[in-house]
Amino acid sequence: MPDFIYEHKVYYNPVEFALLFIGGTWKMPILWRLNQATMRYGELKKSLPHITHKMLSTQLKELEKHGLVTRTVYPQVPPKVEYALTEKGRQVMPLITAIRDFGLAQMREKGIQP
Amino acid sequence: MPDFIYEHKVYYNPVEFALLFIGGTWKMPILWRLNQATMRYGELKKSLPHITHKMLSTQLKELEKHGLVTRTVYPQVPPKVEYALTEKGRQVMPLITAIRDFGLAQMREKGIQP
Repeated sequence: MPDFIYEHKVYYNPVEFALLFIGGTWKMPILWRLNQATMRYGELKKSLPHITHKMLSTQLKELEKHGLVTRTVYPQVPPKVEYALTEKGRQVMPLITAIRDFGLAQMREKGIQP
Repeated sequence: MPDFIYEHKVYYNPVEFALLFIGGTWKMPILWRLNQATMRYGELKKSLPHITHKMLSTQLKELEKHGLVTRTVYPQVPPKVEYALTEKGRQVMPLITAIRDFGLAQMREKGIQP
């Protein structure tokens, strides 16, 4: 497969391209939580205790840009902002579940309690 | 899920732990190739044109350490070193295939020729 460029970055293969959408430390954990429930920013932040504000907002913007997550602002005081999975986001869940199951199996193998 | 430490690094969830074994730019492409054929170091390097020697040897060492890849040295002149998937490496392939398929679908969606 030849290399290709997408948004000023070179990709070498489809796996690497896939990781643009779901890779890194936080994207899959965020999607995992939003699959369980639509959440407000603060709820999401609380459920991912180690994530910084900068990291969470950057990741959410990228997920939104890539069509995996919607951001809905309810015009009320104080404003309510909710994040939810899109259809495409939902389509990714079996993949994340498989990666998570593999991670859990490795944890068991190493004697780590989930 | 509580955090846990494995080899001096903190992990927050099973997905993140899974990526220790198969994450990053090169691990999945390497496993993908070794699933197609047992390969010598030079063959593997040639099939991943952009990988540096340092990166390939580091990634192979990690894959070997995590039990996904075996390294066999044949005592001949010049020495022949072959890399192959283990049973555990083979078990990861459906996962990588699913990630790759997702990447290919995203490429099609963006009009990128595979």
